[in-house]
Amino acid sequence: MELLKQRIVKDGKLIGDKILKVDNFLNHQIDPALVMEMGKEFKKRFENVEINKVLTIEASGIAVGMAVAYALNVPLVFAKKQVPSTMSDFYTADVFSFTKNKTSTICVSKEFLTPEDKVLIIDDFLAMGNAVVGLEELVTKAGAEVKGIGIVVTKGFQEGEKILQDRGHRVESLAVIESIKDGKINFR
Amino acid sequence: MELLKQRIVKDGKLIGDKILKVDNFLNHQIDPALVMEMGKEFKKRFENVEINKVLTIEASGIAVGMAVAYALNVPLVFAKKQVPSTMSDFYTADVFSFTKNKTSTICVSKEFLTPEDKVLIIDDFLAMGNAVVGLEELVTKAGAEVKGIGIVVTKGFQEGEKILQDRGHRVESLAVIESIKDGKINFR
Repeated sequence: MELLKQRIVKDGKLIGDKILKVDNFLNHQIDPALVMEMGKEFKKRFENVEINKVLTIEASGIAVGMAVAYALNVPLVFAKKQVPSTMSDFYTADVFSFTKNKTSTICVSKEFLTPEDKVLIIDDFLAMGNAVVGLEELVTKAGAEVKGIGIVVTKGFQEGEKILQDRGHRVESLAVIESIKDGKINFR
Repeated sequence: MELLKQRIVKDGKLIGDKILKVDNFLNHQIDPALVMEMGKEFKKRFENVEINKVLTIEASGIAVGMAVAYALNVPLVFAKKQVPSTMSDFYTADVFSFTKNKTSTICVSKEFLTPEDKVLIIDDFLAMGNAVVGLEELVTKAGAEVKGIGIVVTKGFQEGEKILQDRGHRVESLAVIESIKDGKINFR
């Protein structure tokens, strides 16, 4: 997605050769018009796929998940990072975060993920793939089906994309970063 | 907002006389078309007010915050409930949650809240008002100005609305619940 790549170049912040921060328009401050365009782009990429639900994870997946669900005209469900006290019947999966260096349990109510669901998983970043594998686990436990995975920014130099493809999934990324070198981002 | 009230009656779940769960279309599963309509409604309510930023709090404020920011064509900033390791310069406020019975520190980067900002605060629920007062504190610390407060569901039988009005704010709610009695919701 050209518009996104341009924005990454313009507003992304590099920390060393591994970390790209897009707090300016996606992860803390959000450009709603750009995010709504992402929704349309994912709709285009998955237009021949039967999808009746979008699944993402709080918090930074929600905005783009909303945009995709709106474009596809299906509900969005976001997995929670803590089990709410008012939730009684749910599926869980453990997700290790390299950024935070800890494992957390994500959960989704059994009410909102069922065997009838054909799910598009959406997330903002793909690095090692742990969050998406956690979401896939929730879908599998519900007896539902993963129909595709949509990622805003994929770090092509880490293993997540290959791991998900090896598990049989179609992964669509709006921008794939092949490398970061001398303060310059090289896209695939 | 009539559409929202109908949806609350149809899909809201009551727990006793105090708690309304709208997990079905707002807090866990999200109806994106309904939430986008909320954005348009808030735009209408605040149409004569100069606003250049929408501020909300993760996680359940993000979807409606996105819709409002999109309708107003301004950026959305969401306060975080944990200070990210990559964030260096930020404002914080302490927020006590009655639901979780604990105090958490919310934060926003100084980069995304500045003295020039005329802020519309958006949240999904208003009960005692603690989260919104925390967001107001972030705005004040940044030297910015709160131009209005938009709430999806206000519990009119709790103190939050009055507390915010007494602090000089205009509070617009899409649905105000006056009471819950014998399994029936009475709107204002």
